[in-house]
Amino acid sequence: HSSRRDAVAIQICRIMRPDDANVAGNVHGGTILKMIEEAGAIISTRHCNSQNGERCVAALARVERTDFLSPMCIGEVAHVSAEITYTSKHSVEVQVNVMSENILTGAKKLTNKATLWYVPLSLKNVDKVLEVPPVVYSRQEQEEEGRKRYEAQKLERMETKWRNGDIVQPVLNPEPNTVSYSQSSLIHLVGPSDCTLHGFVHGGVTMKLMDEVAGIVAARHCKTNIVTASVDAINFHDKIRKGCVITISGRMTFTSNKSMEIEVLVDADPVVDSSQKRYRAASAFFTYVSLSQEGRSLPVPQLVPETEDEKKRFEEGKGRYLQMKAKRQGHTEPQP
Amino acid sequence: HSSRRDAVAIQICRIMRPDDANVAGNVHGGTILKMIEEAGAIISTRHCNSQNGERCVAALARVERTDFLSPMCIGEVAHVSAEITYTSKHSVEVQVNVMSENILTGAKKLTNKATLWYVPLSLKNVDKVLEVPPVVYSRQEQEEEGRKRYEAQKLERMETKWRNGDIVQPVLNPEPNTVSYSQSSLIHLVGPSDCTLHGFVHGGVTMKLMDEVAGIVAARHCKTNIVTASVDAINFHDKIRKGCVITISGRMTFTSNKSMEIEVLVDADPVVDSSQKRYRAASAFFTYVSLSQEGRSLPVPQLVPETEDEKKRFEEGKGRYLQMKAKRQGHTEPQP
Amino acid sequence: HSSRRDAVAIQICRIMRPDDANVAGNVHGGTILKMIEEAGAIISTRHCNSQNGERCVAALARVERTDFLSPMCIGEVAHVSAEITYTSKHSVEVQVNVMSENILTGAKKLTNKATLWYVPLSLKNVDKVLEVPPVVYSRQEQEEEGRKRYEAQKLERMETKWRNGDIVQPVLNPEPNTVSYSQSSLIHLVGPSDCTLHGFVHGGVTMKLMDEVAGIVAARHCKTNIVTASVDAINFHDKIRKGCVITISGRMTFTSNKSMEIEVLVDADPVVDSSQKRYRAASAFFTYVSLSQEGRSLPVPQLVPETEDEKKRFEEGKGRYLQMKAKRQGHTEPQP
Repeated sequence: HSSRRDAVAIQICRIMRPDDANVAGNVHGGTILKMIEEAGAIISTRHCNSQNGERCVAALARVERTDFLSPMCIGEVAHVSAEITYTSKHSVEVQVNVMSENILTGAKKLTNKATLWYVPLSLKNVDKVLEVPPVVYSRQEQEEEGRKRYEAQKLERMETKWRNGDIVQPVLNPEPNTVSYSQSSLIHLVGPSDCTLHGFVHGGVTMKLMDEVAGIVAARHCKTNIVTASVDAINFHDKIRKGCVITISGRMTFTSNKSMEIEVLVDADPVVDSSQKRYRAASAFFTYVSLSQEGRSLPVPQLVPETEDEKKRFEEGKGRYLQMKAKRQGHTEPQP
Repeated sequence: HSSRRDAVAIQICRIMRPDDANVAGNVHGGTILKMIEEAGAIISTRHCNSQNGERCVAALARVERTDFLSPMCIGEVAHVSAEITYTSKHSVEVQVNVMSENILTGAKKLTNKATLWYVPLSLKNVDKVLEVPPVVYSRQEQEEEGRKRYEAQKLERMETKWRNGDIVQPVLNPEPNTVSYSQSSLIHLVGPSDCTLHGFVHGGVTMKLMDEVAGIVAARHCKTNIVTASVDAINFHDKIRKGCVITISGRMTFTSNKSMEIEVLVDADPVVDSSQKRYRAASAFFTYVSLSQEGRSLPVPQLVPETEDEKKRFEEGKGRYLQMKAKRQGHTEPQP
Repeated sequence: HSSRRDAVAIQICRIMRPDDANVAGNVHGGTILKMIEEAGAIISTRHCNSQNGERCVAALARVERTDFLSPMCIGEVAHVSAEITYTSKHSVEVQVNVMSENILTGAKKLTNKATLWYVPLSLKNVDKVLEVPPVVYSRQEQEEEGRKRYEAQKLERMETKWRNGDIVQPVLNPEPNTVSYSQSSLIHLVGPSDCTLHGFVHGGVTMKLMDEVAGIVAARHCKTNIVTASVDAINFHDKIRKGCVITISGRMTFTSNKSMEIEVLVDADPVVDSSQKRYRAASAFFTYVSLSQEGRSLPVPQLVPETEDEKKRFEEGKGRYLQMKAKRQGHTEPQP
């Protein structure tokens, strides 16, 4: 019931689009890594289910060091071919080659070679690792060489000491319900599909990212299902150009019994053009509410402002909240 | 040559997909804001080009406060209808209504009303604001009411003081070429299309985000076109489940003459499930090189490590660099 | 310098994700049409550039009628294989097979067969059609059979009268089961990721949007889970350029006991360039069926045509339906 090694191969190809590349037209390494992993996941899941038995899904455990040998460009076709090259009792080794093909000139180049390790997890109980059906090797040496690679990576994985305390941003273990506890930042590299034909970010793309950050802040604060209730006026101070990195930062400013106000700031950073400084592109206040599983509005944990600035912003938020409440009670919303 | 007000209307509709919504099935406010802006951009660009004259694109200048009146769900059709309701000399007011339609029951609900202001920018010179062709109002009062809204928003925009120094994360104006100067973090809310059917994030999705952060760090450091040269072994310590927020942080660890090494850490935060702690899911070292416009490798500014930790990491990076260089010189890469 | 027919083949595969499917988990016909066109565009562009000479890009001119033989589900792998089967002086015929593979059970099913026609446009002057290098046929009959298919489609294309004045207008408060009740329009602003490198919308992008509108019309009419059963021949009358707004309108034309026919019209509107008029870019008839939760075919509410035009279109639809039924009973579909 075992598969011949040569039989277990797969070919994926896809044309490279503007969204796959940077402004200079070079395909992001990340796009290639993603295609490599897609091929690896298909072939190893298929192999691990090739015998009758418990159904499983192959989960990526490790990618060996990989070099990007030559750049790939927009309009070229990426060919990803993956092959199962070794199986241990509980893991599968997949080797992947990536070629770029220029379909106008016919030129082909090797751009990548990668080795991935997968582990089959039971679909009934995803914490249970299943056994892998063995591959059949066409030459005896293949099994031996594979075992050596397996032992080497096993050793390396065990050596990896995970410095879990080591984080990039100095976060000082903030207390729950403080502003620092839930504040969040997102950076986004502006891509072609974020932009108009003339190289500016669509206002709608910026607003979508602002809402995403506000939602993460709200979810961190109240740890429930949350939805946008309203957005304050948003002013767009300046255009954001293609190639910028935008930082969208959110922090909670105020909570009432059943709502949270989050301030969101958008800063644009023209990374490549060092003559231009980082600038504030937009900002707004989002109001979120927390919902139960039945869709009913839940009480919200009270925000604890700590610094003077936080206390000032809390009072300002309260002002906006009371003003809006008064407005709502003053006139009834016309029904559609 | 002016347009009748009633003539300038547009209708957009789109079915809501799993990626448009949170885990509870409620469509993100940001998805709706993005559709609203798309309708506004089409109708105002079309209107501003309706007369012969210089070609232009309408840029979003302001969105008035908007309420989300009722939630929208996956599978429902969002109907966005936009109409130009006022024009000043240099700006266009667009009013937008959003309805949700359950196409199985036929039920329709008003979910949003929004007002957007656009400004026409010349395609030849995007810093030049063009004149807007006037709309024709069916009733005299419409123009008067529009003028009032125009004056009110103008006043409010002028009042908005942009606290440009006010940023969420305490960044202490780091010097160029230091580690702090280029370090970057990205948060990503895991969505359905990031996941396998069984609710885990595809390894390839994580790697794509890791490369994105590494690329931003590299671009911030050397301010040129940069490309991925290699990725060190990546170990996946633990599965990332649907609904997590992942934080991907990158910091430069080492520079040689022509390459940069960036360490990338991936942490998963099960936001909604407060019983589970934030954990380290993966980490790796990415190597980037800087390219000239002709695609030739450029020298890289030398990294200046400041703290003891940074100096230690720099030495470790140098070790990996020299080891890899020795390996490469030891054996020639087999040619395809 | 001509290519052997067997040599010109390509294989694309991809795992189906939540966004590729409807709420019931059935992959949209439009997702499959888009993959088919991607394979066709790669193989025909590659072939047309296989000789030294002017560089060109293959533009989709026509898709023959295609049936969706069995539904595909989220988590399955779609395998698309394309092959060049005939070349005339200025056009290329590509035949495509789509298989679905359940990687957990190993089950494979044929889901689609399609035939596409491409025309090579010069990269220097996209209004100039170049000559196509001939393929080499392994059997003499292949050329003859291809020529017959070529002549048949040429005739059909010429017969297509494009009723450019005929547009789908909204009606207020329509009765259920009327044409007005379910008719739907979708507006899409063409973005960079919808386009080839040379600024035209990919044929596959247009087809995916056409299927989306047809699906909304069908769901509105019968208020159940619906899937694409077949698509009539689609002719692409004119390229759609970057920067256009496209309007895709769908209206039901005919219902049999268990199927619905929907006509879809695609109009392109060069918003910024007012010297160019809105034009009809493509049109086609989609056939949908209604499925129960167990995947069994359900009866469809009878369409009630009201106007003379609607009655005429109903009769025309009935004609197509009866013709297709007769064809099916005449010969048995060959099994894979």
